[in-house]
Amino acid sequence: MKHKVLGKEIERLINALSKLPSIGNKTASRLSLFLMKNSPELTMEIARSMVEARKKVKTCQICNNFIFNDTCLCMDSTRDKKTLCIIENVFDLISIENSNEFNGQYHVLQGLLSVSQGIGPEDLKIDLLIDRIKRNMFEEIIFATDPTSDGEFTAQYIKERASKYCKKISRIAIGMPIGSEVDYIDQNTLTKAFLDRRKM
Amino acid sequence: MKHKVLGKEIERLINALSKLPSIGNKTASRLSLFLMKNSPELTMEIARSMVEARKKVKTCQICNNFIFNDTCLCMDSTRDKKTLCIIENVFDLISIENSNEFNGQYHVLQGLLSVSQGIGPEDLKIDLLIDRIKRNMFEEIIFATDPTSDGEFTAQYIKERASKYCKKISRIAIGMPIGSEVDYIDQNTLTKAFLDRRKM
Repeated sequence: MKHKVLGKEIERLINALSKLPSIGNKTASRLSLFLMKNSPELTMEIARSMVEARKKVKTCQICNNFIFNDTCLCMDSTRDKKTLCIIENVFDLISIENSNEFNGQYHVLQGLLSVSQGIGPEDLKIDLLIDRIKRNMFEEIIFATDPTSDGEFTAQYIKERASKYCKKISRIAIGMPIGSEVDYIDQNTLTKAFLDRRKM
Repeated sequence: MKHKVLGKEIERLINALSKLPSIGNKTASRLSLFLMKNSPELTMEIARSMVEARKKVKTCQICNNFIFNDTCLCMDSTRDKKTLCIIENVFDLISIENSNEFNGQYHVLQGLLSVSQGIGPEDLKIDLLIDRIKRNMFEEIIFATDPTSDGEFTAQYIKERASKYCKKISRIAIGMPIGSEVDYIDQNTLTKAFLDRRKM
């Protein structure tokens, strides 16, 4: 091309947005055009909220969750201190809280161990978690990581390291989701639902 | 929930990101976590490039394309002044330039007319385009909008308003893409490919 069609500013923006997960070059281009067409205030709002949240975020030294102020959920004295639920991220925590089924402590891994993505124990600060388990002598540890291969592998790995410090280690149930249909569910789930059937 | 799990900063970020097209609440949450986990520099880079591009962008008063400096492609004296190609956005322009098949002028609509999305002629500044066509008396106007219902409708609408100022108005061909297979192509494209068959 004889003439430079895109400005370097927009090329830089497309390039920066492409660094976000699951945002490819096409999506980044589309998002950039959207921002250029819309009000400058919208761009400012997004940019400012990004920078402010990133500046304010800290990681709790006890439960590894993100915190934006000095108190964390793990400091809440009304909660059961003897049960620990291990989860991937804060959105899992919110889902579990919304179910009203659990009133214990959480530990947020901020990811899952993954051979394919090269995420190892040090990336998830597993030592911090094992130290916490050692110190607290929990009565029960519940794994609530996703029932995917990474989720299962993560739970299995931590269980092996934690089992000498806790007698009761459990995993949330795998089975048919409510409202699903037997003839539509995947074979692995159905097999597991049979194996783990309960007396009624 | 007794305890506020998410900080207001991250809630604001999720809310701001959700305003981007095709970014729902789930994706916005995932992007926010990604930013919180990664280096502050990455967040700064994205935010800064956003603000800088949005501040610098202007719209060319002649061809309606975005410009980031004072000269626009439409000022390039080496290009044919008598042919006008009407397109949706600057990425279409880049694709056409890369094909090396066109050396005329462009007019960038920055969108398509759409009844379903409520985008009318004033949103796309169609009057500016008609004025340009009136002034320039182009020898040919080529529509290169997408072969979708919005793209066809937009081309048809502009053609009706422009036809008294230009004798030759054309539309890029619709037919089988190179490398495609007759038994896999959609019926409408195949019908059109038959209707528009060429003597060989």
